[in-house]
Amino acid sequence: MQGRKVAIIGVGMTTFGEHWDRGFRDLVVEAGLRAIQDAKLTGEEISAGYVGTMASGALVGQEHAGALIADYMGLNPIPVTRVEGACASGSLALRQGVMAIASGLHDIVVVGGVEKMTDLDTAAVSEILGGAGDQEWELFMGATFPGLYAMMARRHMHEYGTTKEMLSAVSVKNHWNGARNKYAQFQKEITMEDAMTAKMVADPLGLMDCSPITDGAAAVILAPIEKAASYTKKPVEIVASEQASGTLALHSRKSLTSIEAAKIAGAKAYKTAGLTPKDIDVAEVHDCFTIAEIIATEDLGFFKPGESGPAALAGKTRFDAEIAINTSGGLKAAGHPVGATGIKQACEIAWQLRGEGEGTQVKDAKIGLTHNVGGSGATAVVHIYKQGW
Amino acid sequence: MQGRKVAIIGVGMTTFGEHWDRGFRDLVVEAGLRAIQDAKLTGEEISAGYVGTMASGALVGQEHAGALIADYMGLNPIPVTRVEGACASGSLALRQGVMAIASGLHDIVVVGGVEKMTDLDTAAVSEILGGAGDQEWELFMGATFPGLYAMMARRHMHEYGTTKEMLSAVSVKNHWNGARNKYAQFQKEITMEDAMTAKMVADPLGLMDCSPITDGAAAVILAPIEKAASYTKKPVEIVASEQASGTLALHSRKSLTSIEAAKIAGAKAYKTAGLTPKDIDVAEVHDCFTIAEIIATEDLGFFKPGESGPAALAGKTRFDAEIAINTSGGLKAAGHPVGATGIKQACEIAWQLRGEGEGTQVKDAKIGLTHNVGGSGATAVVHIYKQGW
Repeated sequence: MQGRKVAIIGVGMTTFGEHWDRGFRDLVVEAGLRAIQDAKLTGEEISAGYVGTMASGALVGQEHAGALIADYMGLNPIPVTRVEGACASGSLALRQGVMAIASGLHDIVVVGGVEKMTDLDTAAVSEILGGAGDQEWELFMGATFPGLYAMMARRHMHEYGTTKEMLSAVSVKNHWNGARNKYAQFQKEITMEDAMTAKMVADPLGLMDCSPITDGAAAVILAPIEKAASYTKKPVEIVASEQASGTLALHSRKSLTSIEAAKIAGAKAYKTAGLTPKDIDVAEVHDCFTIAEIIATEDLGFFKPGESGPAALAGKTRFDAEIAINTSGGLKAAGHPVGATGIKQACEIAWQLRGEGEGTQVKDAKIGLTHNVGGSGATAVVHIYKQGW
Repeated sequence: MQGRKVAIIGVGMTTFGEHWDRGFRDLVVEAGLRAIQDAKLTGEEISAGYVGTMASGALVGQEHAGALIADYMGLNPIPVTRVEGACASGSLALRQGVMAIASGLHDIVVVGGVEKMTDLDTAAVSEILGGAGDQEWELFMGATFPGLYAMMARRHMHEYGTTKEMLSAVSVKNHWNGARNKYAQFQKEITMEDAMTAKMVADPLGLMDCSPITDGAAAVILAPIEKAASYTKKPVEIVASEQASGTLALHSRKSLTSIEAAKIAGAKAYKTAGLTPKDIDVAEVHDCFTIAEIIATEDLGFFKPGESGPAALAGKTRFDAEIAINTSGGLKAAGHPVGATGIKQACEIAWQLRGEGEGTQVKDAKIGLTHNVGGSGATAVVHIYKQGW
């Protein structure tokens, strides 16, 4: 990357789930304080902050989340800025934090992600989430996100012979991982039969193909790599931070079976890091729906187009197999508090590289990747991480 | 500043007003294309974008504005990121753009600001705007922004003897300037009597003390200064870009008669630029209410505390006087499409330094400043500009 090298020196998150008794600000403050404790620093050392949240305005009536966080975390008067790119908001915030340090403008930066989604009913939340797509040409016409991803799934099935069993295998694997993650919304294994027979949401996607509505927050502390050693014995270096854009509406795409922006962001990230897909030991990818994990692992080059479904069915993406995908349980089982997801992915990779992956620790994990997508893929962000010690 | 020097090489905006026949995306595309034309470049040369919008989700159902703009401006697949800090969203986007170039990560960057506010009724918009303050402790308790700024005005009157006439003088001056700005929402002079007798909104603030609800967009093109000369004979260098945070809620402040975050951001900007308030020839400051301009010109050191009101009344802030304030007409007369305001301020300063200020051109304007505040001052952003040729 250009400029100074950047490392994660601390991570923290709330449990993901339905937090009826806690507000937006409670969640983000808890995650931030946990990250600060993990980095063993004091708030005074932090010189800037970024926060990713998709829809705090529509969901809880609170815009201006950057200032809110500066205020409630006792960080005033440092600059704290909210960044938004739908479901990729967290990773966009992370990228701004990386740039702030790489540029030499700031040293210690806190980056958070948060969403409080359960204060409204599901129909209202679905409409708000629809704002991640093209409001005038998709949402207004009645398209919801399960519907959009169902079309991608149907086309993937048509072109490559991907089956419902393959989608279900993704869900079963992610629930198995989630059952071993103390922060996950669903710490519960499911069977292939559970996944195959779950209530249909948008054919072919059933309930077990869809990530849930979730409250939660996550945070990381970033520092220049040369200062990282004074805070932690295990800094996690961010060796690539790339973002790309694609069409907002699905109907404008040349292909429904891959996400062009994710392919571009991924290719740029590998190039920046001087690595290839084979070098990645563990990846958190954006499985808002099971088909999204299938597509992601193809877009990132872990499998060839059409081979991800069979690979999932064959268990190749388990934590102890070829390429460990979503050891946290992914969006499916760990939950998907939209703005927090990208930062939760970074937390999970940091834990994996530090050897703190607990029940899903990947053996000798040295290089990790996160893949975070906004909407149906109009924004894609890929980060690559390696052990910085 | 740290890193590479950054200049504005092109600016553009829509007219500000009630655009019943045009949508969010139409506005931002028009402003962006005008800026691209002004910079005499092609879209292919742009490698990143930022956009400031406060509440597109709540106002028009469209989150993910960065991707929307990449899409509708034909900029895919470059990264375009939305930044939000309430009424300071535009300046926060500008600051991210500056950092992206200073860091060496990007060369040509487009930065836009936009808000489409007239699709909902005024009560709904007021509630959404309330999300710029502390939703749980201000908005929920019934405090609106006119009410919050009215308390600041009352306290300023109490401490310094500031009068309703002084507030009105700000409004009369800004309307005089706005009458000479072809992009302004109100191109119409008003008299002291008009201002003094206007319908009361929140005592002591009457209708002529309040900025309006506005649709509009603005954009600037940024480049490293060493490349700027190949696009324009008159690059406008950004010599400082500073941001600070304060408490979200007014009741948590030590003082109601100044905005601490603005004082801090201003002081840092002067230090970074190696300049003092006396060096500034022309400034666009955040006059969401007339009292806000009084406070801003004190916070920025143009006048001592308590002296801004008398200065406004004595005409010292006119375009041809001591320090030219809000030659565009400010938020009051030019309009306040929230996310666009910070970028409109940058456009106005660029025009002034380039000698294209038309009816309010400040003689020999060489150094300019913009001051943009989120909510009642929880975010403040100050930029300083000088002729880069």
